[in-house]
Order: sequence, then structure tokens, then C-alpha cells
Amino acid sequence: MEPFTLYILGCGSAKPSNGHLPSCQVLSLREKQFMIDCGEGAQMQLNKTRLGITRLGHIFITHSHGDHCFGLPGLISTLGLLGRTAELHVHAPADLQPFLDCILQHFCQEMDYEVIFHAVDTKKHQLVYEDRGVEVWSLPLAHRVPCCGYLFKEKPLLPHIRPEMIECYGVPKSQINNIKAGMDWVTEEGEVIPNSRLVRPADAPRSYAYCSDTRYLPRLAEWVKGVNLLYHEATFDEEHVIRAQQTCHSTARQAAQTALDAEAKKLVVGHYSGRIKDENALLAEAQEVFPETVLGREGLSLSIV
Amino acid sequence: MEPFTLYILGCGSAKPSNGHLPSCQVLSLREKQFMIDCGEGAQMQLNKTRLGITRLGHIFITHSHGDHCFGLPGLISTLGLLGRTAELHVHAPADLQPFLDCILQHFCQEMDYEVIFHAVDTKKHQLVYEDRGVEVWSLPLAHRVPCCGYLFKEKPLLPHIRPEMIECYGVPKSQINNIKAGMDWVTEEGEVIPNSRLVRPADAPRSYAYCSDTRYLPRLAEWVKGVNLLYHEATFDEEHVIRAQQTCHSTARQAAQTALDAEAKKLVVGHYSGRIKDENALLAEAQEVFPETVLGREGLSLSIV
Repeated sequence: MEPFTLYILGCGSAKPSNGHLPSCQVLSLREKQFMIDCGEGAQMQLNKTRLGITRLGHIFITHSHGDHCFGLPGLISTLGLLGRTAELHVHAPADLQPFLDCILQHFCQEMDYEVIFHAVDTKKHQLVYEDRGVEVWSLPLAHRVPCCGYLFKEKPLLPHIRPEMIECYGVPKSQINNIKAGMDWVTEEGEVIPNSRLVRPADAPRSYAYCSDTRYLPRLAEWVKGVNLLYHEATFDEEHVIRAQQTCHSTARQAAQTALDAEAKKLVVGHYSGRIKDENALLAEAQEVFPETVLGREGLSLSIV
Repeated sequence: MEPFTLYILGCGSAKPSNGHLPSCQVLSLREKQFMIDCGEGAQMQLNKTRLGITRLGHIFITHSHGDHCFGLPGLISTLGLLGRTAELHVHAPADLQPFLDCILQHFCQEMDYEVIFHAVDTKKHQLVYEDRGVEVWSLPLAHRVPCCGYLFKEKPLLPHIRPEMIECYGVPKSQINNIKAGMDWVTEEGEVIPNSRLVRPADAPRSYAYCSDTRYLPRLAEWVKGVNLLYHEATFDEEHVIRAQQTCHSTARQAAQTALDAEAKKLVVGHYSGRIKDENALLAEAQEVFPETVLGREGLSLSIV
């Protein structure tokens, strides 16, 4: 399987606290990188991962709160200084555009590359991007400003060739792609070998969902059903459930409930409030509902399997 | 003497490299803090110093390049989240205002405090701010965009009371401030005790100059004559002197020459290019001309004496 990896660059909330940085992640799949949110310090954090920046083509922003987008000015400028020529696509709610325009107008006039803005309708669950390998779907969230999460779904994969059968029937290498695409094989003697004997079934396509910031939203589980890895904000613990509701955030238990209802394989939580003194208590709270939970932290990478 | 301390929060150049962060400093004097430049990550760095933020009232920005101002959105927003009510003053070249306006309009509508912009004329060496304790003067620099450094000059200090003389002549405590202000003392017997017998001379006022970014500018030395501490950019070494000139930056040797000509007491260099692999070589280059040079680094604090 192609590596499909999540890198957490920042998983704090708005106020810098407990050593966390504001929201930013990079998802790496098939030689491509997708950034999700871009809080202040994103470029420094990206630098630390040694992922490089040439494969970064698309940035998905959830909403126009500073802790999710204040890393854009620095990142965009630095890419210009490094001589980038490839287009950079920013997908975000429409109200981010004036900020982006301001940066481009006042700081980026001499850049050799173009930044292209794509407004995402935060009220609709729809396809917002696709390429050969992946589809990205918006996930309407409930926050204080227009906000959506993103679901990354690997496209159906090709089946695996069975080398012993290929050898047995003398199938030439030139035909391998056709066999993978489903073709039967006809031997020189005219015997038809059904495709199913030549291949093993494809791996199931994998998926990753990023849900931040949002109050607890039961319907979310349907949209991310069976997701391999779910990132869900857990700004508060159950003790602060009222405050969570008031500020349109979730508790760790609520994040876990969504993971459980979605039948996710794994949950990673983040966006911790500065009020949370003991993140392990937050973890315990989530694991009571959904044992396959891990705490997000800066520098953590997770293989999506 | 009142503590007068410089805290270096970032001393790298535009591209994040060698572990440095973009330009940002805090100068602390008499219960007040002044921030100078505000590169990305400023609020996180400030958090690490444990200086607190309530005493921060004025930010001085040298020029509108991202590595000197992209920390403003995050810092200004966070101060709002923390419930600040006191005005925050931003002094900067006029071309920074659209960026600041954009941030305030799109991210700071709900803040309880006001951000007040003061345009600084970067072509004039003039007083841009003063309070009871300090004057701040602009220092016209030569960079690719309008740019000025800042000179912080402590105001003349009061003389020291000589406790033994006060006791000898029975001067009441209520008169101490008058004596400090220069008044003579008349004893009950009518004898006039000249002020000079009651006090020791005041300490010499101290000063700090911040000069970044600029090509080598010989006239700068006159404006910062006798400065206690000079921060001067040293983006390059002498090997890259042509590149320094082309990009309107300085070499370590040029920074040291300015310190020497200014008869500065101490020089601290920074704004290192990513091309500089060995900062100690940069230090050695500067020390050949001006031995009292130190390398700036994140987390360094220097007492200004």
C-alpha cells in the first residue's frame, strides 16, 4: 500500500498554552501533500518535519479564526522566497478571501507563483477536490463562524497481481496494467483465464476525516462512516460541557461518541483549551467511550491503515 | 538603577533556517515593555519568556516585510482573547497600515481594546514616542522598502541622595524629592546647604539602538553615538559582501564597523541568512573590528549597562 500518513504540526487552541501550537496538519498520500489548517508557526513546524514543501499543492482551511489561518502569510511568502513556480491552491470558506487578498497584495507582489482561492460552501457536504488518487469532501460543522471539516477518501485501488499465475500462464509484462484494470487473459491455445484467477482483490480504500472546530454534531458520524482515522476536536472535558456548548466546541467524550457512532478505526483528539491541565484525563474520558483514541501532539505522525 | 533589559525572541531572517525565528525583541524598562518587530511566532516566544503581556503597550515595527510583522495578527488577537482593555500602540512605516487594518477588520471586531496606528516617517531621524522614562527616536535605514530602526534613550535620571548628609542635617523625608530635584537645604539655623553636598551625581542615562534591516550606512554611527547596546543586523559574512549590498543588508564586519564608529559599549548581531552555516565565524569576523560583540540568539537576554 502507498504510505498515507498524517503529520500533526499544531493541535492547540487559540491561546498559546501548554506548549501547543495552533491548528495545522499535513496529510501525505502518493507523492502529494495536503495541508489542513495553517495556524501561526506552520512554516517552522513544516520545516521541522523535513517533509519538504515542493509536494504541497493544496491547503484546506476550516474557518476564519486566527488560530487556523495566521500561518498563511508566512508560509505563502516563504514559498515565494524559495522560488516556487507551481500554483498553490487554498480551499476555505469565502470569508477568508479578503485576508488572503490582503496578504497577496501587500507582501507577495514579486512572487513567481500564483495562489488560487477556492471558496468552500460550508453548508454542504460535497466534493471540493479530487485527483487521480483522492477525493476531498467538505463536512459542514457547527461553529461560531462558517466552518467545515474535510474528509479525504482514497479512490478505489487496483487489485494485486498474483505473480505465480502471471508466470503460469505466460502473461507478458505489457499486459499487467490491463489485467489490473480487470481484463481476462486468453492463452495462445484460446483458453480464457478469468481475471479473478489472475489477481487478488484490491485493498480497501482508506480515509481520513478532520473535524475542527465544532460543537457536538451527531449527524457528522454518518458522513464519516467507517473512516480509518478521525481527528476530532476535544477542546474541553465533560466538566466544561456547558462551556463547550456555549463556545461551539466539543468535549473529549463527545469526540469519542462521534468516533464510536461513525465506527471509525481510530480517533485522534486535539485543539485543547488552555483550561485543560491534564491531557491524560481527557484521553481517559475519550477512551471510556472509544478505546482506540490517542492524544494529538505536535510532531506526532500516524499511518492511516 | 532600574533594570533595562533586552530580550531576543527571534533573530533569524526571512526564511526559517538554522532553528532561528524571524525578528522580534522585547525591551523592558521601568515597568514598561516595548516590542520591536513582531515576526511570526512572537506570541509563542513571548509566552516562553514569562514576561507577561500586561506591561506591553507599544510595538515598533521597522518595515513591512513579513519576517518583521507576521506575528502581529496572532499577538493582537490573543491579547483580545485574554480580555485586554488597554490601548495598544503600533508604530510603523505607513505602508504597514493596510495589513493592520485588514487584521482588525476581519479578525478583531469583538475585541475590548483599541489598536492605534502611528505612521513613522522613515526618512527622518526624529522623536516618535516619549514617556516619563524614555524617548524613542527613529533611525532612517537603507533597505528595499521604507525602513527605520529605533533608538531608545533613557531620560536624564535623578541624582542619588547621600543618606549620611541627609541624616547629618536632619532633612525630613518629605523633602527628599525636592532635594533630588536640585533644591538646596536651609537648616533651622539658616545655614544654606548647597544641593551638591546632599547628593551624588545621577547615573548616566542608558540607550539601546535597533538597526535592522539595512545596508551598511556610515551615517548611522552619528545618530547612535555612545549607545550602550547596539543591535545591528549581520545577515551575511564578508564573503557575501556583494550580495549584502544587492539585497540592502549588512555583513558582520560592517555591523562591527558601525559599533566601532558609534563608540558603542556593546554590539549584538542577528538576522542571519540561511546561507550562514557557522555563526561563530560571523562572530569572529565582527570581533576583529569590535571585540565587544555577542551573537544574538532566541532566549538571550542582555542587561543594558
